[in-house]
Amino acid sequence: MASRIAKDKEESEILEKCKGFMSAPVTDVEVLQQRKGEMSSRMEMLIMETQAAFCQAIEEVDGNKFKVDRWQRKEGGGGISCVLQNGKVFEKAGVNVSVVYGNLTEEAAKQMRSRGKVLKGKDGKLPFCAMGVSSVIHPHNPHIPTVHFNYRYFEIEEADGSKQWWFGGGTDLTPVYIDQDDAVHFHGTLKEACDKHHAQYYPDFKKWCDKYFYIRHRGETRGIGGIFFDDLDQPSQEEAFSFVKSCADTVVPCYLPIVHKHLNASFSAEQKEWQQVRRGRYVEFNLVYDRGVKFGLATPGSRIESILMSLPLTARWEYMHEPPKGSQEAEMLEVLRNPKDWV
Amino acid sequence: MASRIAKDKEESEILEKCKGFMSAPVTDVEVLQQRKGEMSSRMEMLIMETQAAFCQAIEEVDGNKFKVDRWQRKEGGGGISCVLQNGKVFEKAGVNVSVVYGNLTEEAAKQMRSRGKVLKGKDGKLPFCAMGVSSVIHPHNPHIPTVHFNYRYFEIEEADGSKQWWFGGGTDLTPVYIDQDDAVHFHGTLKEACDKHHAQYYPDFKKWCDKYFYIRHRGETRGIGGIFFDDLDQPSQEEAFSFVKSCADTVVPCYLPIVHKHLNASFSAEQKEWQQVRRGRYVEFNLVYDRGVKFGLATPGSRIESILMSLPLTARWEYMHEPPKGSQEAEMLEVLRNPKDWV
Repeated sequence: MASRIAKDKEESEILEKCKGFMSAPVTDVEVLQQRKGEMSSRMEMLIMETQAAFCQAIEEVDGNKFKVDRWQRKEGGGGISCVLQNGKVFEKAGVNVSVVYGNLTEEAAKQMRSRGKVLKGKDGKLPFCAMGVSSVIHPHNPHIPTVHFNYRYFEIEEADGSKQWWFGGGTDLTPVYIDQDDAVHFHGTLKEACDKHHAQYYPDFKKWCDKYFYIRHRGETRGIGGIFFDDLDQPSQEEAFSFVKSCADTVVPCYLPIVHKHLNASFSAEQKEWQQVRRGRYVEFNLVYDRGVKFGLATPGSRIESILMSLPLTARWEYMHEPPKGSQEAEMLEVLRNPKDWV
Repeated sequence: MASRIAKDKEESEILEKCKGFMSAPVTDVEVLQQRKGEMSSRMEMLIMETQAAFCQAIEEVDGNKFKVDRWQRKEGGGGISCVLQNGKVFEKAGVNVSVVYGNLTEEAAKQMRSRGKVLKGKDGKLPFCAMGVSSVIHPHNPHIPTVHFNYRYFEIEEADGSKQWWFGGGTDLTPVYIDQDDAVHFHGTLKEACDKHHAQYYPDFKKWCDKYFYIRHRGETRGIGGIFFDDLDQPSQEEAFSFVKSCADTVVPCYLPIVHKHLNASFSAEQKEWQQVRRGRYVEFNLVYDRGVKFGLATPGSRIESILMSLPLTARWEYMHEPPKGSQEAEMLEVLRNPKDWV
């Protein structure tokens, strides 16, 4: 009897939470209620909560509302894309949730294998479920950095029926000008979240982040990093989820204080131009190296507008651009060429 | 005695031609004179001539001069990059010559193999020589299309000492607004050059161009095409070179009349914005699909600034951009989604 009441309470909690989301979840609320103990349902709730909390914080500071698009994927699943374009503070802000399932193609499976997973399909097919929340926020003001985060969960079924699962994610910052205090705040907040779970998480995932967001042909990182991890299937599903939840819970406290701090900072046309050049580098990374983008472009039926939502509204490519020695722009480049330890 | 005079005459012709180039050729003039009968020397002269003729035509219409950079590649060879940025007519105009040699890496060789060439290296190494002229011209005015051309020659030495060689190239147009007469002029000029060599060249290479410059994830071609060919090693080296020369000779007559026609066309802020959206698509193609860019980014010691010179000065990514039905922008999209036969 007591457990029946507890069950009802949990179910009504799910319903209550859904009311605060940007849109109804991709999976029917009833299904989420029925399967509330399963990791896929718990993760879907987490990514919906993260989207709602972050969008709300962005709307509050910008004064404009996100445009919310619900979309379905013919092959299975769908998503909710929230975009705020040409706002007061933000040039382009995108927060996307997707919950997709189906069979992995060989090309997409190859992308997976490169992450170190050996996966054996039945007749070349690998049933999978992938879900995540991802966001890129490009502000107008060059003194407010761009932020990106992504938290995701994969389940994949092998030929013998066994399920493999893993989490991935991270949050990273891309300033146009370096601000020591911002960097310390950002990394410190992430470190604190990591340290609750494992002493090695922050140092390992900080390093991984610098390595992942590296624009090889430029010899520069995309930004000043943060944390990045993938293939996380330890120490247990419960613990891994708990860690991912801690990370997802930091996206607002990591970024919003930095936005508020520089909200009214004045800037010159030259500073805006340098921002545009850095935006060009952002595009280069995302189109040439980013695994998520590659996976998306190679997955039939994926929603291109949601995948490329991460691209800035505007970008610039100047031939042979090199900031003058001793300038603030050169100082930024120096940090991108030689990643620092901030905390 | 007569042949000695002929030889002297040829050598002084080479020297005379070099005076009109944007810079001295990558290979020493004396070496070019000594090996004047070899295809690599003849092709290097052709690409230098093409660069000079095209740059001159662009400078004449713009009123500004190209910035000329000579660069050397540590691993062998070098190039001459000519860039005119923020001109009166052109936002960014780049005309690049490169003559590089060395050993192909495994990654770069893979790019080659995907073109249908089976190449056997000695101890995994494949000595190669690659040269070409390439250009992308992005004008300010949205009524003047972007043009791109590239003519190139490869020599590669296999483990058994045998040499494989082939030519590749093409010229293609990327308008922001469709102009039937421009399309007919552009394709007609290319067809005329092709028809002198083989009746199948134009139809085959036109189709190849539409296929190559296809942005798969958008379901659109990059522009209205032109011609594209690769792996051309028939019917003989002499004939293939003669065809490439005919194509290279058309770059000025293909494009400049179109520039002059729209030089003073007025345009609105909305038309400029549509141009910027199309520029974003240009970036997507070049960074995600273009084999030349991929090859360049994967070749150690390649000059990034010359490879990415093809990117526009400015570009734009609007979320869910879709032109209104019946608009000129929608008309352009229609052509990009369903390539037409223009001549």
